[in-house]
Amino acid sequence: MENIKENEKLNILNHSCAHLLAHAVKGLYPNAKFWVGPVINEGFYYDIDLGDDVIKEEDLPKIEKEMKKISKSDKRITRIELSKKDAFDMFKDDPYKVDLINNMSEDEVISAYKQDDFIDLCRGPHMPTTKSMKYFKLLKVSGSYYKGDSKNKMLQRIYGVCFEKEEDLAAYIKELEEAKMRDHRKIGKEQKLFMISDLVGKGLPMYLPNGYILWENLENYIKTKEKKLGYKHVMTPPLGNVDLYKTSGHLDHYKENMFPIMEVDGEEFVLRPMNCPHHMVIYSNSIHSYKDLPIRIGEIARDCRYESSGALKGIERARTFCQNDAHLFCTLEQVESEFKTVVNLIMECYKELNITNYRFELSLRDKEDKEKYYQDDEMWDKAENMLRKVMDDMNMPYVEKTGEAAFYGPKLDVQVKPAVGNEITVSTCQIDFCLPMKFNLTYVDKDGSKKTPVVLHRAVFGSIDRFMAYYLEETKGVLPLFLSPVQVNIVPVNMEYHSHYAKEVYDYLLDNDIRAEYDDRDEKMNYKIRESVIRKIPITVILGDKEKDNDNISYKKYGKEETITVSKEDFLVLLKNEIKNYR
Amino acid sequence: MENIKENEKLNILNHSCAHLLAHAVKGLYPNAKFWVGPVINEGFYYDIDLGDDVIKEEDLPKIEKEMKKISKSDKRITRIELSKKDAFDMFKDDPYKVDLINNMSEDEVISAYKQDDFIDLCRGPHMPTTKSMKYFKLLKVSGSYYKGDSKNKMLQRIYGVCFEKEEDLAAYIKELEEAKMRDHRKIGKEQKLFMISDLVGKGLPMYLPNGYILWENLENYIKTKEKKLGYKHVMTPPLGNVDLYKTSGHLDHYKENMFPIMEVDGEEFVLRPMNCPHHMVIYSNSIHSYKDLPIRIGEIARDCRYESSGALKGIERARTFCQNDAHLFCTLEQVESEFKTVVNLIMECYKELNITNYRFELSLRDKEDKEKYYQDDEMWDKAENMLRKVMDDMNMPYVEKTGEAAFYGPKLDVQVKPAVGNEITVSTCQIDFCLPMKFNLTYVDKDGSKKTPVVLHRAVFGSIDRFMAYYLEETKGVLPLFLSPVQVNIVPVNMEYHSHYAKEVYDYLLDNDIRAEYDDRDEKMNYKIRESVIRKIPITVILGDKEKDNDNISYKKYGKEETITVSKEDFLVLLKNEIKNYR
Repeated sequence: MENIKENEKLNILNHSCAHLLAHAVKGLYPNAKFWVGPVINEGFYYDIDLGDDVIKEEDLPKIEKEMKKISKSDKRITRIELSKKDAFDMFKDDPYKVDLINNMSEDEVISAYKQDDFIDLCRGPHMPTTKSMKYFKLLKVSGSYYKGDSKNKMLQRIYGVCFEKEEDLAAYIKELEEAKMRDHRKIGKEQKLFMISDLVGKGLPMYLPNGYILWENLENYIKTKEKKLGYKHVMTPPLGNVDLYKTSGHLDHYKENMFPIMEVDGEEFVLRPMNCPHHMVIYSNSIHSYKDLPIRIGEIARDCRYESSGALKGIERARTFCQNDAHLFCTLEQVESEFKTVVNLIMECYKELNITNYRFELSLRDKEDKEKYYQDDEMWDKAENMLRKVMDDMNMPYVEKTGEAAFYGPKLDVQVKPAVGNEITVSTCQIDFCLPMKFNLTYVDKDGSKKTPVVLHRAVFGSIDRFMAYYLEETKGVLPLFLSPVQVNIVPVNMEYHSHYAKEVYDYLLDNDIRAEYDDRDEKMNYKIRESVIRKIPITVILGDKEKDNDNISYKKYGKEETITVSKEDFLVLLKNEIKNYR
Repeated sequence: MENIKENEKLNILNHSCAHLLAHAVKGLYPNAKFWVGPVINEGFYYDIDLGDDVIKEEDLPKIEKEMKKISKSDKRITRIELSKKDAFDMFKDDPYKVDLINNMSEDEVISAYKQDDFIDLCRGPHMPTTKSMKYFKLLKVSGSYYKGDSKNKMLQRIYGVCFEKEEDLAAYIKELEEAKMRDHRKIGKEQKLFMISDLVGKGLPMYLPNGYILWENLENYIKTKEKKLGYKHVMTPPLGNVDLYKTSGHLDHYKENMFPIMEVDGEEFVLRPMNCPHHMVIYSNSIHSYKDLPIRIGEIARDCRYESSGALKGIERARTFCQNDAHLFCTLEQVESEFKTVVNLIMECYKELNITNYRFELSLRDKEDKEKYYQDDEMWDKAENMLRKVMDDMNMPYVEKTGEAAFYGPKLDVQVKPAVGNEITVSTCQIDFCLPMKFNLTYVDKDGSKKTPVVLHRAVFGSIDRFMAYYLEETKGVLPLFLSPVQVNIVPVNMEYHSHYAKEVYDYLLDNDIRAEYDDRDEKMNYKIRESVIRKIPITVILGDKEKDNDNISYKKYGKEETITVSKEDFLVLLKNEIKNYR
């Protein structure tokens, strides 16, 4: 989606449209007072104090109509410059504007924009006339605390967006609707995958049976691949002593993302935001020879991060989640081949899961920035060139981002473009020289000397939760057979005649570890088939006389028209094959 | 093991032996001052202030010798009764005794016991002469803060035990040694199953790769069985909003076992000590008909509990652990059959895991206790009779424990007697009428009315962590093939001639999902075989000319003498069969 804030023209247009909105609201609600109306990535909003009045979703068309009227009337928009004193005089009855003016410096020229009888403080610039804002739409209304503080008064925030051309607005609205339809929270509810309850706590998703089957299969999928690559999986607790995060540096660099500290019998504990420190301690638990390296420690590891309630979004952004994490401890010489293996693993998973729209970013250090980056030019150069070489060797095109590296080393991010919305980072592989030193990690080299290993931090799925959110939106909830909570739904043509055979087939599939359901309700066959499709079950089996008499199965795949008839045994082979091939 | 504190005779004997110890220490270390010397389950101890002197493990025989001398000298032990004032006069130079006397009430008769020139405050009673304490042993010495407060001075605590008969002492010491050898912390270290690091935090075990394989197999073992019984597994976060625990009552009844509260963006969170509230909320997420019941929600669920650092013990008692938890929501009529199924599941697991020494306890309410128990006599009677009936029907003998029920309902506990040490509760099944009401859970009954379901809380393994500790001690770390982190160790007779074939066999086993290792070090065959036995690997494969030429395998099972030769394929079938049968 177009980022409106970053597009200069659209930025000015949307800013002007926020004033148009305020102008219209003022006409309809004369007591309205206005706080701020900024441009955001998705358009604009205005925070409004309506006293006892409330604007609901259904009031938005009325406001849009008023906005259109003002737009058509083609009012000139003029800039007025004021001294701080004049500004105070002009807005003295408006506590919100007084607050804004109070926060401006003495010598600042304060500007306001006027259209007809409506005037509002604003830095500008603005469009020349109200007619410029012709193709806009108000999107939603929500509550918003004054200055974002829940102790303050609740204001009403109206969101909107404005484009230069009608077709741009239409395309944008279509995309919004598509996004709403694909929203993983909607799919999660429809398919009973997860729930979030205020009683359990905001930002704490609970996976329901269907969601946990999906989760388990994603977990097993990636763990099986990792095991084949020699990863050793561990299980470490989701909290640690505060000293652990002092040693790692998280308490200095990452504290605002961490939960509060808890004291237990004289010790201070904190929920962990990342798993690296635990894995470092595991490495340091035994003596390692160069012959043991690389050591690959993996974990589906639970983390907890401090998120404001406003930032939460289903399982995409929660206060707790599980990373598909691993730390590869190796010699400097091994970094290249380890890195290659990680990239290959990522590519293999993307191929099997049908993720096709992605690109690579190499995040490198900014050589001029002597503050942020761990200082060892030789090592940085070596590591960065290694990354470039691996990518070149593998014929993988990439974009270099200078100054985007973590402080401890350069990294590869895989940026995936979803069907709707902005790019997201799904996979990452980072080279780290720092943590192994902070934890005094060593291995004994060929010559008997102690050396510090290099660590690769890597995640294929990022967090399983976040990946699941992305994957549900990408597939619109139409999951491949191997991940589907329900793989096969069995519908008898007639309950009286075919329920016995249906039960037989059902037991046969269950016994062979197929996640089957048998719809034995007293409903018509067509109703059941329709429901099976609405539930997006990959395969619906329909059993009537023909099937019963021949010990056969007729099935329809989701999204396909034809019905295919095969023997029970062949059906099972077919299912097993598709599952094996991640279809 | 005999509980010495609860055995009246042994209690007096050990108390007197504590004085004997103090007497001897006073003789050897004239500056010694004595705090308290109580009897504990395992014997006695005395907390001693030695000034700058330190008693080490190797000093204990010297003290024992001195004790024997006093014992032989057959000193009379006499009781002296003192007023508070007289007591102060007598012990005025000893700040510890002054502290003790200060805490006694004005009118209390203070007693002291005297043997030869040694006198110490004590309630008594004591043995008549020092000769009575003949068969004793000092077990260990450790540091202990005065009054258990780490801000106070560190005292030295000497542990000992005393019996009436020589053979009782010998048996006790043998059992102690056996316990030390079986200690899961020792086995866990030897077999690299888990580690605990002060940097990560006390009471926070980390499962190393070997331990996690054992864990994963226990998890899959029980989950597979539960799935077959219609359990639906979920995944819920290890924390919740404080309101959740207000609703459940945990904050009122269980707060001292909970971690401190954390505030996040205006909400209060707490790490969960139990999972019931989360599962109650999951049930309440949808409308249920009587036709849907029973609903069985299972989870390998992480909990965190507040434990003092002194109470911690490896993975047996940690500050975080995962319960093998499930909540069965059913009608009152279904309780009996659900309960029966749970007991059957427990018995099936015990049989397969070779747990043979156990008994059943029914914990019932105390009818007279109107405070503790949820008041509904009819329901209690019904539930208690149901439990009795199930156990009688199944021909399971049980002991009734009145007043041991949870406040919300009666329960069955399965008490397992380990090879060493006291009985432990491994499995439990509890009937709960209360929580479903607190969370307003309902189902729609046949007649359309809303009813409250009954909940069974049940755990087969208790926590996986605790079960693992028990199981390691019970098996001395000799795990069945299906749980062993390493199932097969491959040893070539001669590296030069047989390493190629060894590698071939190794790959064959790995490809067939056998956890195999291949010992390719430059060591002698016998050394490798010996190590394989020390590591308690279930099967050691030895490959020489005969095996190589005939595509065969020779193997030795742990603890068996004979070597058996079979084809590669037959070997795999044999392994798969044993694994399938939980051998």
